[in-house]
Amino acid sequence: MDYYSGYITKLIEELSGLPGIGPKTAGRLAFHILDMPKEQVGALAESMVQAKEHVKYCKCCCTLTDQELCPICSSRQRDHKTIMVVETTKDMAAYEKIGEYQGVYHVLHGAINPMAGIGQNDIRLKELFERLKGDVHEVIIATNSSVEGEATAMYISKVVKPLDIKVTRIASGVPVGGDLEYIDNVTLLRALQGRTVV
Amino acid sequence: MDYYSGYITKLIEELSGLPGIGPKTAGRLAFHILDMPKEQVGALAESMVQAKEHVKYCKCCCTLTDQELCPICSSRQRDHKTIMVVETTKDMAAYEKIGEYQGVYHVLHGAINPMAGIGQNDIRLKELFERLKGDVHEVIIATNSSVEGEATAMYISKVVKPLDIKVTRIASGVPVGGDLEYIDNVTLLRALQGRTVV
Repeated sequence: MDYYSGYITKLIEELSGLPGIGPKTAGRLAFHILDMPKEQVGALAESMVQAKEHVKYCKCCCTLTDQELCPICSSRQRDHKTIMVVETTKDMAAYEKIGEYQGVYHVLHGAINPMAGIGQNDIRLKELFERLKGDVHEVIIATNSSVEGEATAMYISKVVKPLDIKVTRIASGVPVGGDLEYIDNVTLLRALQGRTVV
Repeated sequence: MDYYSGYITKLIEELSGLPGIGPKTAGRLAFHILDMPKEQVGALAESMVQAKEHVKYCKCCCTLTDQELCPICSSRQRDHKTIMVVETTKDMAAYEKIGEYQGVYHVLHGAINPMAGIGQNDIRLKELFERLKGDVHEVIIATNSSVEGEATAMYISKVVKPLDIKVTRIASGVPVGGDLEYIDNVTLLRALQGRTVV
């Protein structure tokens, strides 16, 4: 990497630290950045610094927001008695895009994963259980249907059930438009077990 | 995209402007950046601004450097009478990595491409021809073997030949380790035409 100016090498190094970006892609990005107008480079750099500076956790649902309370938690039109538990802000956005869900959310920022050393105290579970002391009717667990997501769902349901709050889990089965022949065995079994009367 | 804080949306937008980064990857990168320590985000942003600010064109060979003259152009150990013409600084680095070439370079920053509206005045050809007024023995054309690279090579050789300077083109043929059965027809033909006596 001594073939380039130190500034270019440093830029390539910094970009290589991003997920999914190897040295080759980092090189391509670096030369593209050098080719961009100065103002645009400034805007890109500034957007990173600004986002990091202003974005924090909502003090109620723990999602990433730039306010004390996120727009959903501070909305009067939402049903604050129904809480959907998701792993990330992106999962929350995925449900918000549909526009059908009227309740509020709780973002865990991860899932229980003993193999990676992530226990129940490393994700935002304490904040969730704190919220359940208020007036809550239903907790909808919408963690991923991965091993970690399932373990987290199991743990939450165990804690919440004794509190006399309805606990539900989003359905697991064949995705819409999915071709049965290409779907894995576990999903097929889940779809069978979770069959509903038509 | 209204599901996120304005700062996150802005960051995703800026990242989506980079080559090969779609909205999904931009989202993943943005949330990774929000998850990085503040100092690291600062370093990443700073490296972009610094690179853009300090990196300029070498006034001799037009490569990207942070000095008036790049280390190769200012080296006394290099053969300044042999100039290898390449399309980009990355191509120059590719040859430098081998460590065998002792001459100097000239970086065109592109190739002639009439379809994209890039003519001979839009790349650094004028600077190359200016250099040839000095004491130059050989011009090695190492543009890519794409249509644009070939057209550029042809144009350069037409201009340089009457100046009584040796003009050569890097060999085109089967890459080392290449399996003949998987190599395209044009390359196979080139390899045949460019055969050498053993």
